[in-house]
Amino acid sequence: MSGHTLGEIARLIGGRLEGMAERAVRGMAPLQGAGSEDLCYAASPRLIDEVVASRAAGVIVGEDFPSLPACNLLRVQDPKLGFVRAMELFRPKRRRAGMHPTAVVASDAEVSEDAWVGPLAVVESAAVVGAGSQIAAGAFIGSGTRVGRDCMIGPNVVLMEGCVVGDRCILHAGAVIGADGYGFHWMDDHHHKIPQLGSVVLEDDVEIGANSCVDRATLGETRIGRGSKFDNLVQIGHNCRIGEHVLIVAQAGVAGSSRLGNGVVVAGQAAVADHLTIGDGVQIGGQSGVIGDLAAGARVWGTPARPMTRVLREQATVGRLPELLRSLRRQRDDLDALRARIADLESRQGE
Amino acid sequence: MSGHTLGEIARLIGGRLEGMAERAVRGMAPLQGAGSEDLCYAASPRLIDEVVASRAAGVIVGEDFPSLPACNLLRVQDPKLGFVRAMELFRPKRRRAGMHPTAVVASDAEVSEDAWVGPLAVVESAAVVGAGSQIAAGAFIGSGTRVGRDCMIGPNVVLMEGCVVGDRCILHAGAVIGADGYGFHWMDDHHHKIPQLGSVVLEDDVEIGANSCVDRATLGETRIGRGSKFDNLVQIGHNCRIGEHVLIVAQAGVAGSSRLGNGVVVAGQAAVADHLTIGDGVQIGGQSGVIGDLAAGARVWGTPARPMTRVLREQATVGRLPELLRSLRRQRDDLDALRARIADLESRQGE
Amino acid sequence: MSGHTLGEIARLIGGRLEGMAERAVRGMAPLQGAGSEDLCYAASPRLIDEVVASRAAGVIVGEDFPSLPACNLLRVQDPKLGFVRAMELFRPKRRRAGMHPTAVVASDAEVSEDAWVGPLAVVESAAVVGAGSQIAAGAFIGSGTRVGRDCMIGPNVVLMEGCVVGDRCILHAGAVIGADGYGFHWMDDHHHKIPQLGSVVLEDDVEIGANSCVDRATLGETRIGRGSKFDNLVQIGHNCRIGEHVLIVAQAGVAGSSRLGNGVVVAGQAAVADHLTIGDGVQIGGQSGVIGDLAAGARVWGTPARPMTRVLREQATVGRLPELLRSLRRQRDDLDALRARIADLESRQGE
Repeated sequence: MSGHTLGEIARLIGGRLEGMAERAVRGMAPLQGAGSEDLCYAASPRLIDEVVASRAAGVIVGEDFPSLPACNLLRVQDPKLGFVRAMELFRPKRRRAGMHPTAVVASDAEVSEDAWVGPLAVVESAAVVGAGSQIAAGAFIGSGTRVGRDCMIGPNVVLMEGCVVGDRCILHAGAVIGADGYGFHWMDDHHHKIPQLGSVVLEDDVEIGANSCVDRATLGETRIGRGSKFDNLVQIGHNCRIGEHVLIVAQAGVAGSSRLGNGVVVAGQAAVADHLTIGDGVQIGGQSGVIGDLAAGARVWGTPARPMTRVLREQATVGRLPELLRSLRRQRDDLDALRARIADLESRQGE
Repeated sequence: MSGHTLGEIARLIGGRLEGMAERAVRGMAPLQGAGSEDLCYAASPRLIDEVVASRAAGVIVGEDFPSLPACNLLRVQDPKLGFVRAMELFRPKRRRAGMHPTAVVASDAEVSEDAWVGPLAVVESAAVVGAGSQIAAGAFIGSGTRVGRDCMIGPNVVLMEGCVVGDRCILHAGAVIGADGYGFHWMDDHHHKIPQLGSVVLEDDVEIGANSCVDRATLGETRIGRGSKFDNLVQIGHNCRIGEHVLIVAQAGVAGSSRLGNGVVVAGQAAVADHLTIGDGVQIGGQSGVIGDLAAGARVWGTPARPMTRVLREQATVGRLPELLRSLRRQRDDLDALRARIADLESRQGE
Repeated sequence: MSGHTLGEIARLIGGRLEGMAERAVRGMAPLQGAGSEDLCYAASPRLIDEVVASRAAGVIVGEDFPSLPACNLLRVQDPKLGFVRAMELFRPKRRRAGMHPTAVVASDAEVSEDAWVGPLAVVESAAVVGAGSQIAAGAFIGSGTRVGRDCMIGPNVVLMEGCVVGDRCILHAGAVIGADGYGFHWMDDHHHKIPQLGSVVLEDDVEIGANSCVDRATLGETRIGRGSKFDNLVQIGHNCRIGEHVLIVAQAGVAGSSRLGNGVVVAGQAAVADHLTIGDGVQIGGQSGVIGDLAAGARVWGTPARPMTRVLREQATVGRLPELLRSLRRQRDDLDALRARIADLESRQGE
């Protein structure tokens, strides 16, 4: 986390500095609580009071932010993007190469000289670790598993045997890739285990959150498409095929053999049942339970998951149910009153 | 994963070969994508086109599957069972015995000579590991914990002290057995921890999924019955008693002190509240929230969980609510119209 | 787990013994199944039959429990508190100091002489471990992370770099503190990772359950307040601020940047969406989905979470929907009948 001057940062993120180019920046911080050597970010002009009050060395702002002569403003076209670019300047780059003496690496494993295997990590027979990849302490790379280039395999991650991890993947601490799928066959008097002989393939640029699980296929492979990002404690069942650039938020799960298209978003704690086909770009709301196929672009919520607009309408109606019950009762009274009046008319007419 | 001929496989799984007995098989694969040395499985005659199109060395089929002279069919009475039996022929049998030199095994631990303790695994004082059991890399067996025969304890599994694991149990990577139950007593100004002095007992043939947790009892034991199988990320609270052959699917949870009968099925992300009694054979639908006792054989869904038939009826009715509101409004108009006509009649009669 | 006499225990927990002071107690057990050297606990006088039937050496009871000359009763004002105090007498005190020879501790880490670093644990550069703290086997303490005094860091726990753990914290096996928050920015054709440069702070007396995750902040810190207790498989997103004495039950989650006040209770499998403010003392029912701010003291349930009383009323109404539909249909028939009678009256009047 080396320092930069505001001028350097402006140049590196492609921004225009309004202020002191020589001002030193040691790190990044939220507007509130920033110190005099911190760089901050104001997503919108509405934050002007916070910017003025801040002690920050400088603030990244967009084109629509007013000029403030007393502040060092680092003006960029897309402030969120400028923020991300600046964050990258301060990201620790702790790339190591070699093997810690306590790592246990099989003699026939192929570990790139440019890769790092941390303390007490295990790389089993015939496993492959590509150039630049960092295997953190306590991680386990099973036999025959291939890890691509420039991956980050976090502490205590488990990659079971025969799996494939693409380039630039990030697996956070405690993630388990390639545990057996959940498959049993009732045989006389017990659940008989169905061997799980397939594997898991993570394509390039996949990120898997802490303590998340991706199960190996019964046969064939469980596949996670390029650029998909999963949060913590996510569960992916055996034989799933997850498309590219899919987001799956914390504690959500996809059951066995389901297919998710590209760009699908599964919000937190939602579930997709087994053997379903979910089209490209589908958005699944938090805690939803999807129990049927969904066409591309669908936006659903609820258990069972239904189109978002319909769910909102139903929720509104359910909220009006007590009132509805009262109307119904009132109408019954009205009916009784009318019936009496009609009976009265009829009896008079009969006179 | 050694190879077999089709003829050998037919004999080993008790099937009848229609085709080339000498044909070599190297492994198993799904019908789509199978190579010329793969054995496949067709669950039903409806898959006949896929079977004909496949390059597979042979296909396991049932008695109702048509004859196909151009294909090597391996005919069995129960095709699913034949499939499982064939899978077992190709399952890797990586049984090892001894201890990896980097394993840390207490001098007074009793590890069978026929068991395996993998690299960087820890077996603490007075722990017992039975014959044939395989303790994978990085696993932790706490002091006094007893692991039976022929168990598979996955990488980085944690078995805390004083627990008991029966024979032939499988614990997948990252599972935690015997962490403290969640118990506190409000004392003046803070939640005071209630010591958790009990243990966990897993009976024979239990399987626990990756990163699942089974908490130790406050006093006595948390017990998982023979042959029960849990998926990944499952939570079992302290003092639960889970019956035999119970299935608990991914991300489901059972809160403290609840009892599940034999053969119960808890689908994914469902929850059973604490101190409940769930009868034998109960089926709990995905994402259900069970907040009351359930009689044997009940099938429930929803939060709060209600009989499946009732939930489906309610869901159908909720879907019809907007229509119902419209009817109600129409009836109000009808009532108004009738009221006017009656008033008219009454006024004329009064003339 | 040394033994005590009943007399000693009575003195230590501040109770009054009715029975044999010299009677030896070896441990604690539930009433059912207790042996002759076990101490038990009867929460209420309704358990009198179980107490009489028990073989226990003694039973902790409250002031309202009847005298039983045949039993050794250990009478206390608050029986739950007496039970907790007695449990504490029998809790194993396995405090160790020093470092196991297989632990990997950076030369510039500051580990108190009075702390313990277990087998195959890793303490990285510039990390600090306070007096009395116990780092169990396989745990990982990242560089610069500070662990306070008298903490219990369980087996295979991961504390990523730059985090802060207060005094007397308990982290159960497999918990992951300080993994990257889940943040991406769509850039042209892919989700671009937003570096997560902040940290996690656990204040004093925090307890984190097995395989739970607390993510580091994007900037600044994710903070868990003093005395808060989380169960297993809980997820806390980046930049959350959790108050003091908050309870979060198993498999629940709080999404990024949300703030929970003091004394909040989040029941199992519930979720709080991102960027919300939840007031002091709020109670959130099991499996709820909170999608809006909540005022102090609110009690909510359901998805979306609504006031508990309203949810219960709505549920009751939904249960009556089929009956409501029937009433509606009956009224339609009634209306038709009245209409016919009116038409009849009108036609006669026209005569």
